[in-house]
Amino acid sequence: MLVTLKNPRDAESVASRLQSLGLWTEKLGSGDGTRALFVRSDSALVAPSTIEAVEGVAAVLVPPTAHPKLDAQAGIASRVGDHLVGHGAPPVLISGPCSIESREQIRVAAEAVRAAGGRLLRGGAYKPRSSPYSFTGHGEPALEWMREAADAAGLAVVTEVMSEQDVDRVAAYADMLQVGSRNMQAFALLKAIGKAKKPVLLKRGMAATVEEWMLSAEHLLVAGASSVVFCERGLRSFDPSTRNLLDLGAVALLANVHRLPVIVDPSHAAGRKDLVPPLARAALACGAHGLIVESHPEPAHARSDGAQALDRDGLLRLADLCNLIPPRTEG
Amino acid sequence: MLVTLKNPRDAESVASRLQSLGLWTEKLGSGDGTRALFVRSDSALVAPSTIEAVEGVAAVLVPPTAHPKLDAQAGIASRVGDHLVGHGAPPVLISGPCSIESREQIRVAAEAVRAAGGRLLRGGAYKPRSSPYSFTGHGEPALEWMREAADAAGLAVVTEVMSEQDVDRVAAYADMLQVGSRNMQAFALLKAIGKAKKPVLLKRGMAATVEEWMLSAEHLLVAGASSVVFCERGLRSFDPSTRNLLDLGAVALLANVHRLPVIVDPSHAAGRKDLVPPLARAALACGAHGLIVESHPEPAHARSDGAQALDRDGLLRLADLCNLIPPRTEG
Amino acid sequence: MLVTLKNPRDAESVASRLQSLGLWTEKLGSGDGTRALFVRSDSALVAPSTIEAVEGVAAVLVPPTAHPKLDAQAGIASRVGDHLVGHGAPPVLISGPCSIESREQIRVAAEAVRAAGGRLLRGGAYKPRSSPYSFTGHGEPALEWMREAADAAGLAVVTEVMSEQDVDRVAAYADMLQVGSRNMQAFALLKAIGKAKKPVLLKRGMAATVEEWMLSAEHLLVAGASSVVFCERGLRSFDPSTRNLLDLGAVALLANVHRLPVIVDPSHAAGRKDLVPPLARAALACGAHGLIVESHPEPAHARSDGAQALDRDGLLRLADLCNLIPPRTEG
Amino acid sequence: MLVTLKNPRDAESVASRLQSLGLWTEKLGSGDGTRALFVRSDSALVAPSTIEAVEGVAAVLVPPTAHPKLDAQAGIASRVGDHLVGHGAPPVLISGPCSIESREQIRVAAEAVRAAGGRLLRGGAYKPRSSPYSFTGHGEPALEWMREAADAAGLAVVTEVMSEQDVDRVAAYADMLQVGSRNMQAFALLKAIGKAKKPVLLKRGMAATVEEWMLSAEHLLVAGASSVVFCERGLRSFDPSTRNLLDLGAVALLANVHRLPVIVDPSHAAGRKDLVPPLARAALACGAHGLIVESHPEPAHARSDGAQALDRDGLLRLADLCNLIPPRTEG
Repeated sequence: MLVTLKNPRDAESVASRLQSLGLWTEKLGSGDGTRALFVRSDSALVAPSTIEAVEGVAAVLVPPTAHPKLDAQAGIASRVGDHLVGHGAPPVLISGPCSIESREQIRVAAEAVRAAGGRLLRGGAYKPRSSPYSFTGHGEPALEWMREAADAAGLAVVTEVMSEQDVDRVAAYADMLQVGSRNMQAFALLKAIGKAKKPVLLKRGMAATVEEWMLSAEHLLVAGASSVVFCERGLRSFDPSTRNLLDLGAVALLANVHRLPVIVDPSHAAGRKDLVPPLARAALACGAHGLIVESHPEPAHARSDGAQALDRDGLLRLADLCNLIPPRTEG
Repeated sequence: MLVTLKNPRDAESVASRLQSLGLWTEKLGSGDGTRALFVRSDSALVAPSTIEAVEGVAAVLVPPTAHPKLDAQAGIASRVGDHLVGHGAPPVLISGPCSIESREQIRVAAEAVRAAGGRLLRGGAYKPRSSPYSFTGHGEPALEWMREAADAAGLAVVTEVMSEQDVDRVAAYADMLQVGSRNMQAFALLKAIGKAKKPVLLKRGMAATVEEWMLSAEHLLVAGASSVVFCERGLRSFDPSTRNLLDLGAVALLANVHRLPVIVDPSHAAGRKDLVPPLARAALACGAHGLIVESHPEPAHARSDGAQALDRDGLLRLADLCNLIPPRTEG
Repeated sequence: MLVTLKNPRDAESVASRLQSLGLWTEKLGSGDGTRALFVRSDSALVAPSTIEAVEGVAAVLVPPTAHPKLDAQAGIASRVGDHLVGHGAPPVLISGPCSIESREQIRVAAEAVRAAGGRLLRGGAYKPRSSPYSFTGHGEPALEWMREAADAAGLAVVTEVMSEQDVDRVAAYADMLQVGSRNMQAFALLKAIGKAKKPVLLKRGMAATVEEWMLSAEHLLVAGASSVVFCERGLRSFDPSTRNLLDLGAVALLANVHRLPVIVDPSHAAGRKDLVPPLARAALACGAHGLIVESHPEPAHARSDGAQALDRDGLLRLADLCNLIPPRTEG
Repeated sequence: MLVTLKNPRDAESVASRLQSLGLWTEKLGSGDGTRALFVRSDSALVAPSTIEAVEGVAAVLVPPTAHPKLDAQAGIASRVGDHLVGHGAPPVLISGPCSIESREQIRVAAEAVRAAGGRLLRGGAYKPRSSPYSFTGHGEPALEWMREAADAAGLAVVTEVMSEQDVDRVAAYADMLQVGSRNMQAFALLKAIGKAKKPVLLKRGMAATVEEWMLSAEHLLVAGASSVVFCERGLRSFDPSTRNLLDLGAVALLANVHRLPVIVDPSHAAGRKDLVPPLARAALACGAHGLIVESHPEPAHARSDGAQALDRDGLLRLADLCNLIPPRTEG
C-alpha cells in the first residue's frame, strides 16, 4: 500500500500517526524530499479510509484485490453437512485415521471420534505417497466403509481427492472434499473439485504464502465450491526436531483479521504424538475454528502415520484438554 | 537413535511396537535382511530403557548428550530476582519498550507493566540495529533510568547485552541478561555473559535449530550463567504476511518434553500489533512459561518498533485475555 | 548409513578413515562404549564395499533404495526426439516463450531458438497461474502452432501438462512432457503423464528435497515414462532480492554423483533478466546437461513473465557466452 | 521503487515499457484508476533516470540508499596485502585448514596453497563451535605459526576474529580479518573489527538477506574498515542432501549488478568433498572474484571439518579445473 503526501514536510507527522495505527512505513522520495510512504505488507490491517483521514495524506493507493469471491466470504462460517465451521461457530473437531484400512477399523475409529465430541470423520481412501511403492488406500470400498461408519456415529465426512477422475466418486460419499498440501496449486484438480459445488478443506502447501493460499481458494470458489475452509498443517523448515513448522501467525491472520474459516492439523505439523495436545490447544487459543487430528484404534498396526496417531484414550484426553467435548455427550 | 535387532525376522514386530510408542523408524540392513531400525529425530521422546525392553531388541545405541549441564536443569525453574520462570511456576509477563528513550518514558512504561501484572521490565539501552545509522540506545544512563523505574514499580529488570565490554556495566543494573537473536551463536559474547553468573534470557537465532539453541545455552552454563531461559521469537521465513514465523512446536518441545524454561516474544514474531494477542494466548496454551511483549506509553513516538508496540490499554487487554493479572492487583 | 564396529576401541581409527573418505560421522553407543558410527546424509557418496573393507568395521547397514527404476538410469542420457540429454551428451539449450500467444509469435521465437543453437522449443499452451483471473494459455491451437514452428525450425517440443485430461492431447504434439513445480507431487497427474510413455521434464517443487524429487521421478518411471530429466528452477526462500534460490548443489549432486540427466532454468530462478546469463554459465559449469531459458520476440508485449524473458539478441548472447552455438550453424 | 503516472490511461504503455526493461510491476490505484506502478524488489537494476524518461511517467520515487559508503565502493577491488580482490582483478584462491593444528601442519598446508596458485592462506586460530566442548583453536601461537608459514610461501593471511578482545592481536598477524557467518550481525564485534582499519572478509549469515549483508558491510566501513569482501557460504535450508544451500544468485547480483567484491566458499556450502569442485567452477562462472576452500595435509587427522577438506592433490586438481594456476608457477 502506498500513501502519498500533500507536502514533504508532513512526512514525519504522517509516519508517526501511521506507526500508532500499527503500520510499518518506508519513505520514498525524489529530488524534492519525501513524497510518499510505502506501507509494508506485514503491517496491521487498517481500512484505507482511516488512513485517508490522516492530516497530510494526499491519497492512499492500493492494489486491486486479487480474490474478490473469497473476500466476500469474510465473517461467514462454512456449512458442512449440519455443521458450521468458522467465524461465530464453536470449534469443531475432525478426526479419524490416516488410511481407511477396513470396515471394522473405520467403524471403531468413528465411534471414538463421536465419543470425543467430534463432528466430522476424516480418513484416506486415496492417499498421496512420496513413494510409488507405498500403500495408497483402498479406494471406493473405503469410501463406502467410511460413509457407513460416519452415518452410524452421526458424523459428517471429509476425505481427500487426489485425481480429477475421482471427484464425482468421492463427492457421492463425502460432505466435504479435501485438497492435500501437495496439490494446493494443482490448478486443474482445484477446478475439477470446485465443480462438485461442495465445501472444500484446502490444506496449505508446504511453502505457500498466505496470499497464494487465498488465491487457490479463489480458484475453488470461481469453479463453484460452496465454501472453503483453510487448513494449516505446518511448513517445510530446516529443523529436524519437528516434522513441519506450524504457522499459527497465519492462522491468527486468517481467523482474526480476514475472518475466514481456518482449522489446524497438529498431527502433521508436529509429526510426533507427544506434541499434538499442546499444539492443538495453541491452535484454538489463537482463533482456529477447529482441529483435524489423526487417530487410530491401534496405532501400532496403522499402515501409515501410526507414529503420530492418537489412540481412543489419547483422543479423549485431547478433546478434554481443549474443552471440545460437549456437556451432554451421550455415551 | 539406533535400535539393533536380535533377529531380522523380528523387524516387523519391533517396528510396530515402536510405532505405537510414537517412534518413526527406517529399516537398515545388509545382505541378510533388516539388522537395525533407525529412529528419526522428530520422533516422540521415549526413554532408551523402554525401548530396550521391547521383545526382539538387541541394543539401543544413542549418541552421548551434547549438553549435560543443560540436561541437569530439566524440571527446574529459573530464579530471576524474586521470581521463578519455568516448570511449575505461574506464567510470567515481561514487558516494556524496545528502546529506553527517557527517564519519564521508562517510568510510565514500568507503571503500565506493573498494572498489567508484569514481573519483569524490559527495555533496550544498547540496541542491535541492521543499519549503522539507526538509533542504538542511550547506554548507561538508560540503564540507570530503567533500574530506578523498575524499583519504583517493584519489577525485576532484563536487558540485552551486545558487547563483551558492556557485560559488567549491564550486570550492575539488571537482574537478567539478554542475548539477542543475532548473537545466539556469538560465542565470545556468550562466554563473557556467562561469567557474570546471572540468569540469562537466550533468544533463538532466526535460523537456529533447537539443538543449536540448546548448545548455546550449554555455552552459557559452562561459562557460569546461573540459569538459562529460552525465548522463541519467530524464525526467518518466506511469507511477507508476518514478520517472522513463530515456532510453537519448539516451545512445546522445550516446555513439555525437555521441561526447560521457555518464554515467547509474540511482538517480534508477528511484527504487527493486531496479531500479538492471539499469538500470546497460543504461546501460553502450548506450555510457554511466560511472555515478553513490547509496550510503549506512546507508540506513535517510539524511536524503534512503534508499529508493533502495545500502549497501556493494549497491554492491559492482553494481560486480561491471557489471565495474567493477579487477583489482587492494587491499581 | 550405519557402520557397526568390531570393537569399541576401533572407533577413532575407523572414524578417521571414514573422514578421509569424505564421510561425516556421529558416534552411537551404549553402556560399553561406541558401538557404531552413523554416517550423515550430506556425506560424500562412497560405495558400501569400500567402507566394509576398512579395518575394524563389522558391517555396513544401509536402507534399501527407494527408487530402483531411477537408479537403473544412472549414466544413461535421456532421448528426446533426435537429441540426447544427460551424461555424456553435449549441453542442450531449450528455449521459447512462457506463453504461446499466436502462430506468428511462436514461429519467430522458434527461429531465434534455432539461431542460438537450441535443440528444443518450449512454450506454454496450458499455463498454471496463481490467480484464476490470469491468462492460462490458448490450449490446443497453441499446441498446433508450436508443433508447426518447431518442425519448420528443426526443433523438438517440450510443454507442460497441467491436467490428467490433457495428457493424450499434449502427447500428440510434444516430444517431451513437462511436469511443473507446483505439480511435482500431484501423484495422479504423474501417473497419467507416465502412461504416455514419453520422456518427461520434471521440475523440482519449491520446497522439495532431492530425495522427494527422485521419488517423483520413480512415480513417472513406474507408470511408464521412457525417461526423466530433472529441472532445477530455484527454491522458495526468504530473500526478496532474487525470485527463487537456485540450488546448484542439488544439480551438482544429480549430475556428478548420481549421474542422472538434469538441466537448469535460470529464468525462473533469478526472476530477473540481468542475472540469467551468469546463472546459466554457472549451471553448465557445475555439470548441468542443459538450460531451459525463457525468450520472447517482444518481451514488452509478453502476456506473462515478460520481465524475465530474453529477446532474440539476448538469447544469442547467452548462447555465445555459454558456448552453446554449434560451430556450423546455418543462419 | 514507485513510478507515478501522469495519467491513468498510460498505465498499460508504461507497464509494457518497464517490462521490456526487465521490471516486474504491480498496479496501485485509487477510485480514479491506476495512479502508480510499484516495481518489485527482485526486478533488474535500472537507473531511475532511464525510467523517468519513459513517456507517461510523472516521477520515480525511491527510498534513500541505506549504505552510502558501500555504494561508493562499487567497481573498486579490495586490496589485501599485495593482492586485489574484486572487479577487474583475476580470481583469487584462498585456502588452508579449518583449524591451525601445529607449526608443521600449517607450513605444509601453505606450501600446497602456493603450489595451487593460491594468494591467501586461511586457517583458524580462534574457532566458533556450536558445542562448548569442541576444539576451539590454539589461539595466539597458531597466529604465529600461520604468519611464518604464509611468509615462507609468499602468501597473505586471512583469519577469523571471534572476540572484540582479540581484534588487535589478530590484526598484528593477519592481512585480512574474517567475520564468521554466526557473527554477521554481532554489531559490537563488527565495530571493533572495523576499527582495525584492515580489509575484512564478511561471511553471510545463514539466513541473512543480501540487504542485511550489505548493511553489515556498511557497519564495518563506518567503523573504519579499509574495504569489505563478501563471502557466500550457503544458507540454511531444509534438504539434508547438502549441508547448506549455496546462493549463487546473490553472488551474481553482488558481482555483476552491484560490482562489489565477492568470493565463494564451496566447502561449507556443499559440506561434502565430492561437490566442492563443481560448485567452485560454478562460482567463478557466475562472476565470483575468488574462492575460499578448505584444504588439509591429512584430512583423516583434521581436528575439525576433515570430511570436507581437500588434500594437496585435491586442491591442485581443483585449481587446475578452475584455471587458477598461473602459467609460470615455480614448483
